[in-house]
Amino acid sequence: MSRKKKTPSESATHMTELVLPNDTNTLNNLMGGRLMQWMDIVSAIAGQKHCNSIVVTASVDNISFRSPIQLGNVVTLRAKVTRAFNSSVEIRIDVDAENIPEGKKVASNSAYFTFVAVDKNGQPVEIPEVVPETPEEIEAYNGALRRRQLRLILSGRMKPHEANELKSIFDIKEN
Amino acid sequence: MSRKKKTPSESATHMTELVLPNDTNTLNNLMGGRLMQWMDIVSAIAGQKHCNSIVVTASVDNISFRSPIQLGNVVTLRAKVTRAFNSSVEIRIDVDAENIPEGKKVASNSAYFTFVAVDKNGQPVEIPEVVPETPEEIEAYNGALRRRQLRLILSGRMKPHEANELKSIFDIKEN
Amino acid sequence: MSRKKKTPSESATHMTELVLPNDTNTLNNLMGGRLMQWMDIVSAIAGQKHCNSIVVTASVDNISFRSPIQLGNVVTLRAKVTRAFNSSVEIRIDVDAENIPEGKKVASNSAYFTFVAVDKNGQPVEIPEVVPETPEEIEAYNGALRRRQLRLILSGRMKPHEANELKSIFDIKEN
Amino acid sequence: MSRKKKTPSESATHMTELVLPNDTNTLNNLMGGRLMQWMDIVSAIAGQKHCNSIVVTASVDNISFRSPIQLGNVVTLRAKVTRAFNSSVEIRIDVDAENIPEGKKVASNSAYFTFVAVDKNGQPVEIPEVVPETPEEIEAYNGALRRRQLRLILSGRMKPHEANELKSIFDIKEN
Amino acid sequence: MSRKKKTPSESATHMTELVLPNDTNTLNNLMGGRLMQWMDIVSAIAGQKHCNSIVVTASVDNISFRSPIQLGNVVTLRAKVTRAFNSSVEIRIDVDAENIPEGKKVASNSAYFTFVAVDKNGQPVEIPEVVPETPEEIEAYNGALRRRQLRLILSGRMKPHEANELKSIFDIKEN
Amino acid sequence: MSRKKKTPSESATHMTELVLPNDTNTLNNLMGGRLMQWMDIVSAIAGQKHCNSIVVTASVDNISFRSPIQLGNVVTLRAKVTRAFNSSVEIRIDVDAENIPEGKKVASNSAYFTFVAVDKNGQPVEIPEVVPETPEEIEAYNGALRRRQLRLILSGRMKPHEANELKSIFDIKEN
Repeated sequence: MSRKKKTPSESATHMTELVLPNDTNTLNNLMGGRLMQWMDIVSAIAGQKHCNSIVVTASVDNISFRSPIQLGNVVTLRAKVTRAFNSSVEIRIDVDAENIPEGKKVASNSAYFTFVAVDKNGQPVEIPEVVPETPEEIEAYNGALRRRQLRLILSGRMKPHEANELKSIFDIKEN
Repeated sequence: MSRKKKTPSESATHMTELVLPNDTNTLNNLMGGRLMQWMDIVSAIAGQKHCNSIVVTASVDNISFRSPIQLGNVVTLRAKVTRAFNSSVEIRIDVDAENIPEGKKVASNSAYFTFVAVDKNGQPVEIPEVVPETPEEIEAYNGALRRRQLRLILSGRMKPHEANELKSIFDIKEN
Repeated sequence: MSRKKKTPSESATHMTELVLPNDTNTLNNLMGGRLMQWMDIVSAIAGQKHCNSIVVTASVDNISFRSPIQLGNVVTLRAKVTRAFNSSVEIRIDVDAENIPEGKKVASNSAYFTFVAVDKNGQPVEIPEVVPETPEEIEAYNGALRRRQLRLILSGRMKPHEANELKSIFDIKEN
Repeated sequence: MSRKKKTPSESATHMTELVLPNDTNTLNNLMGGRLMQWMDIVSAIAGQKHCNSIVVTASVDNISFRSPIQLGNVVTLRAKVTRAFNSSVEIRIDVDAENIPEGKKVASNSAYFTFVAVDKNGQPVEIPEVVPETPEEIEAYNGALRRRQLRLILSGRMKPHEANELKSIFDIKEN
Repeated sequence: MSRKKKTPSESATHMTELVLPNDTNTLNNLMGGRLMQWMDIVSAIAGQKHCNSIVVTASVDNISFRSPIQLGNVVTLRAKVTRAFNSSVEIRIDVDAENIPEGKKVASNSAYFTFVAVDKNGQPVEIPEVVPETPEEIEAYNGALRRRQLRLILSGRMKPHEANELKSIFDIKEN
Repeated sequence: MSRKKKTPSESATHMTELVLPNDTNTLNNLMGGRLMQWMDIVSAIAGQKHCNSIVVTASVDNISFRSPIQLGNVVTLRAKVTRAFNSSVEIRIDVDAENIPEGKKVASNSAYFTFVAVDKNGQPVEIPEVVPETPEEIEAYNGALRRRQLRLILSGRMKPHEANELKSIFDIKEN
């Protein structure tokens, strides 16, 4: 029997948060850890919607924090599945921050989280395939293999010389 | 005048947290985002101690979540600076989780966060050099350059063919 | 000079929340007060976006709570401005709750909040007019006058016999 | 067998809250949603005391927010049952806010919440009758029928022309 | 000019709290530290009301925790000033806990906190005298001197042989 | 069979907390109640580690609060068992607070909490003996009996003339 298929937009999830005093450091800027907590929740919900099951965070890719996000800013997080593997699904989160009274978007950020879908006993369940539709979704789908190899190498579960997809970044572009 | 120097142990920071109901998902396991928030706080404090200034989160490296951490577990986070660059400092966080009444350590985890040290106006300030002492500290110090190149590539600020330290993982080990 | 105009969709705001243990009563159901707090935040953000200024909650209309929302459910709140008056703006919030692993939407709810737009000194500022586009937006726009009269009567600022819009519900429909 | 009877004072509940930074907006004023959350808790406790059972929020009547309540203010909430119906009880909440060091009460507010009393399985249980004693309690008792009709109309469960109690506001005062 | 005088009932403060999941340990009982935090807030508010100024916690006397307070219980805290000294005021807090659906009060507890009244710069300000009225208030007023001597000895600011009030407990009863 | 023995260092626990806005009063200083909540958690964890079981707070000794701890300070709490009795264990907590950017430790504090070790049904379990090693640990061990007698007297469970250990403070030093 064939595996179920779903588009990224079927499980896309929007979250909006207001930066409150306890979310900020002594410079009145949003702490990175609080932003990551929001990223984890929004992407877990998108993962739940795609998998129709409970999901648990498996890994987080490298995240860069650019311009500071300030107290009172409105933070918007948009999560979308990019690609499903056998037992895990990768989700991309895009973050915007707005100082609405001053009319400017003050920051932007993106991240990839992966989740494993499990049943009530914590056992992995099958995940529907992701069928990308838009050019951005297709690009994210294609890059997922490369990011997955990097994750496996960084967590010690793949040897660097086996990472063909990933090596291409270093080898091919140079020769 | 020469730059100030400090050992990792001068700023090492321990944090202990109890996993409370609101930290958990519907499987009663600690949510990844909450753990990352704790990692951010403990490493920011270690960074503050090393730099003697306010620090802001600049980036987080790939993190893998292994065995689940359960409600009621005691989570211990130990943060230590590994290496300082011109305007940033890398910090390694090691995490343990214990179910004390059952007498077992249930999980372990590690991560690298980088911080920028700033003054009250948010302007970068000079960071003391890190002088590693133990074999582990020296290993972490040496690996920092490679991790930094990966970070720069992943955030689009370095071209892959310039990453000599990093390339060695892929090239040298194969030839 | 004419007053600025904006459509409801320009400021529409989505918020997604996960029902955590501390949000629930002893039956493991979301407490009404916590849901109202989320409603207040999502509609305040929509109000900010429409007014491009800080907004403060002026009033909340009658809210009914129907089916219980359970621990672990994903709550989605969608806020949209309906109509602006001289110094206040009315916002409609629609709430859905999903038990994703069981694949059912478990609750729905709606409410009207009004906000006053103010500057940094707390003084009221002018609010752009609302230009409804869809049939639902037009219906919400038309009903706003009636709801406003009810609000004014209930807060003692309008005499019942002056509420022509509102009276129609009782008088006209009967004769 | 006759239904149990209790006075409002037997279940009257006082709650005192300090306005902390995270309860406030960027003007340092208490957010309306946070106040409603406190109103829900204090009235749920009064409802529990009257019904000697778990209670769940059924509805909230129109609430107006007047003068702003500031950071550091002490908010006092007093909840009292007004009248019990077959399966629900109406509770009135009165709110005061004080800036104690400056010696002034800065705000006042009132609201009506209704609750359904349920057993551990969520099934409705019988609610003791309310026996009002003071003139204010008697007035609140008498007004409860009118407010209930408005609630039923606003939630679509009663037709306007059936609301005899409520219509009197519009009809009688005019003729 | 004579010092201002106030009765304990003028500043008596009631606080009601619902025990939520995050307030409890793995046995579902209220954690002692959370109860102390509530005690600190209710007595600080009573202190503010008596002193008409900001107050800061100066000390806490020995507290015993008896029967456990459970998840879902309603905790009532009543704070009353007992006696004012030159620069500090002692406040007694009495705690009850009720399991309302089961109709039983499950715990009781009491504690003494002392506060210093300060102005906006943190400088101590004069505190009104306490004029006890009821027999309980008079007893608490009289015992305050003894408790104060014990506090001074335990914090190393009084030598045991100077504590005449306190010594009486040990000496007189034996001879 | 002889009772198990453990040294204080086997269960010593470090906790580091950042003072956030919601932890502070209107002077931007850490509230005493919040500090006590942290003291309770760090000492409960040390107690758990010593007893290898769940522990519940039994009592708190007199605590003095000295210099204020400010917003943004880093608070370090170190907990160590001092002595075990039949059914309870005493734990000493030492607190430091640092303003790291200004390079000063701004406060210090200490407290004694006692805990009872219980099984999953809340029944007391046997506690390993404490074997003090350092001079400070030995002093704390010896003083524990005196503090215990004071606790028993203050909670009405011992008559003052029976408190031989404690009386020595008053009698012997004088004669």
